[in-house]
Amino acid sequence: MNVKIQGRSRHYRTVSFDSSRNEVLLIEQRLLPHQFQIVPQRDFRQTAAAIKDMVVRGAGAIGATAAYGLAQGARAFSGRGMGEFRRHLQTVYQTLKNARPTAVDPVNAMNQVIHTMRGGKTVEEKQALALAAAEEFANEDARHCAEIGRHGAKLIRNGTKVLTHCNAGWLAFVDIGSATAPLYEAQAQGRRFHVYCDETRPRCQGATLTAWELAQQNISHQVISDNAAGHLMQRGKIDLVIVGSDRTLGRTGEVANKIGTYTKAVLARRHGIPFYVAIPLSTIDWNLRSGFDIPIEERQESEVLGAWGIVTHPQRPPQTRTAEKPVYVRVANPTSGALNPGFDVTPAELITGIITPAGIFKPRELWTKRYKLGHAGSR
Amino acid sequence: MNVKIQGRSRHYRTVSFDSSRNEVLLIEQRLLPHQFQIVPQRDFRQTAAAIKDMVVRGAGAIGATAAYGLAQGARAFSGRGMGEFRRHLQTVYQTLKNARPTAVDPVNAMNQVIHTMRGGKTVEEKQALALAAAEEFANEDARHCAEIGRHGAKLIRNGTKVLTHCNAGWLAFVDIGSATAPLYEAQAQGRRFHVYCDETRPRCQGATLTAWELAQQNISHQVISDNAAGHLMQRGKIDLVIVGSDRTLGRTGEVANKIGTYTKAVLARRHGIPFYVAIPLSTIDWNLRSGFDIPIEERQESEVLGAWGIVTHPQRPPQTRTAEKPVYVRVANPTSGALNPGFDVTPAELITGIITPAGIFKPRELWTKRYKLGHAGSR
Repeated sequence: MNVKIQGRSRHYRTVSFDSSRNEVLLIEQRLLPHQFQIVPQRDFRQTAAAIKDMVVRGAGAIGATAAYGLAQGARAFSGRGMGEFRRHLQTVYQTLKNARPTAVDPVNAMNQVIHTMRGGKTVEEKQALALAAAEEFANEDARHCAEIGRHGAKLIRNGTKVLTHCNAGWLAFVDIGSATAPLYEAQAQGRRFHVYCDETRPRCQGATLTAWELAQQNISHQVISDNAAGHLMQRGKIDLVIVGSDRTLGRTGEVANKIGTYTKAVLARRHGIPFYVAIPLSTIDWNLRSGFDIPIEERQESEVLGAWGIVTHPQRPPQTRTAEKPVYVRVANPTSGALNPGFDVTPAELITGIITPAGIFKPRELWTKRYKLGHAGSR
Repeated sequence: MNVKIQGRSRHYRTVSFDSSRNEVLLIEQRLLPHQFQIVPQRDFRQTAAAIKDMVVRGAGAIGATAAYGLAQGARAFSGRGMGEFRRHLQTVYQTLKNARPTAVDPVNAMNQVIHTMRGGKTVEEKQALALAAAEEFANEDARHCAEIGRHGAKLIRNGTKVLTHCNAGWLAFVDIGSATAPLYEAQAQGRRFHVYCDETRPRCQGATLTAWELAQQNISHQVISDNAAGHLMQRGKIDLVIVGSDRTLGRTGEVANKIGTYTKAVLARRHGIPFYVAIPLSTIDWNLRSGFDIPIEERQESEVLGAWGIVTHPQRPPQTRTAEKPVYVRVANPTSGALNPGFDVTPAELITGIITPAGIFKPRELWTKRYKLGHAGSR
């Protein structure tokens, strides 16, 4: 998407590749929204460290980063013979896989690259195919998000007031995003609407990343506390909810997403407000039979007990360019602990529709349309 | 309630009076939970400034502070004659009233003091009666909270898991609190239970004040993000919700309270969890006919866009004694704004019961029992 730097707007992807320097280029997401920096990862070990250290996050984005990292590692091979190349590639693969051991996207992405490389006979051919496959993975991710946007934009009219939760934006993918894609497409089609961004405690990805994304695209928006959405719905100020998903059960239509998503779905139902989930096909889990089987990660207490930000005065206009890095402040009582479930599960009955690259479906339709939606086969 | 200072536990009230020094003694709430300090207010102007600057907050607490402030001002009179005394008293009254012009509690409290002072003939008699009336106001506030505790404690059994929102604790009253009173009484009766404290963004009174209160009383508790309660209810981890109220409509049973209360009531209903509101009688509004007529204050954007805390490292054990003061950090995207409604309204149908000093009532019973509940008469 476009980013404004010193008054000029330029197109960036979250993840890209400089083939002449053999570098993976990443937006340094830990500095957002306070600083925008592209950081080159000079070898596959740096790329793996960037995944591990959360320079880049989000399913599509870390998938593409791993795919590029694998190509980067393959292209850096300076030894001799196919056997040595294979062993080197194994090291690269394991290093990138171990960067985020519980994530499935890096593994799926790298497997796709490995599969394509089989078409090459020489090391040089395999190196070229690795890069081509990584580029194709990234392009496909962006294409799928664009298709989500095309389908989802129909839900947004002039004056629609949309609620979002967390960040399922272009920063979580290669480009465009999932939950944000309908917003960007509706704006491209000339519609004017307003977005309320849940700040999304404890990590505040709504206040930081989604708000930054929308500001870059000049989309009218306001950050709200997670507590405020119920009141706004009660007063008729929200027309539509669109969220993303970390895992969607193909068999039941249940959706696991950032903690707080379920609460918004319950509120939306009470007020008769449509609740949509936007997902790339890769997040559909065709195996699990119940949302209660989805493991809910309990994250660090410190996330709930504090916050990250730039020290300033509350009434001072915030600096839009700062060299300062965010610091952690302890907010909560120092002798108290916290419970920090990272995700929750929204049942199918609360979901109006699931926006996919292949169209919008009722949650229960995922299973009946499973062959169209990539079950047993493509990613 | 008891506060542990350097290993020793001592009883404090939020507001008290040193009659020998003619000083109002306040807990400096802006430093909590990081520092515990009692700050003496040496004259009525200092006391008014303390109300204005939020050294003390909460309906019962600022009522008692204003009552003591009026007595303090009356007792400091060193002029001659009743006419001069009356003019002086008028100045004191106005100064304290103007400290928080929209609050009703300081005015009600001071009127009670003024009423009692009529019984005195000389300046000296009126001065003595002023202090006696202020003490009685504070004692009555604490007594009412104790009665809320006595009624509400019946709802808590061994092992009950209670959800709270915001701080309707002893720090908001003279002692004991409203929503916390049943917890303190149940503990005093030897029951063991667990409390989840909603952090209560944007001002985080749950993470700071309620968590501090519960830690002081050794009540088992954890802070949770406001997003987490829905998930915990879904997984059967919450048995009971108790919140406070800023204004309860006597005619309809609707409850205005901190933003996010309504959301918790909707979630509790979905999961069949009892939802109780604990209130002193002074917060019942017998006039308004609809919750939609309650003005919802829109507060400063900076509250949502940032947070207050002590700069530290997230993995470092927090200091329980620190001389550092909380700083403000900007969390959100610097080019985004916020919408910050401070309160919401929960309809009567979502409320299981209202815990008052006179017993627990269904929301609709407030009106039928209005004479028992102090309608048209006592405070």
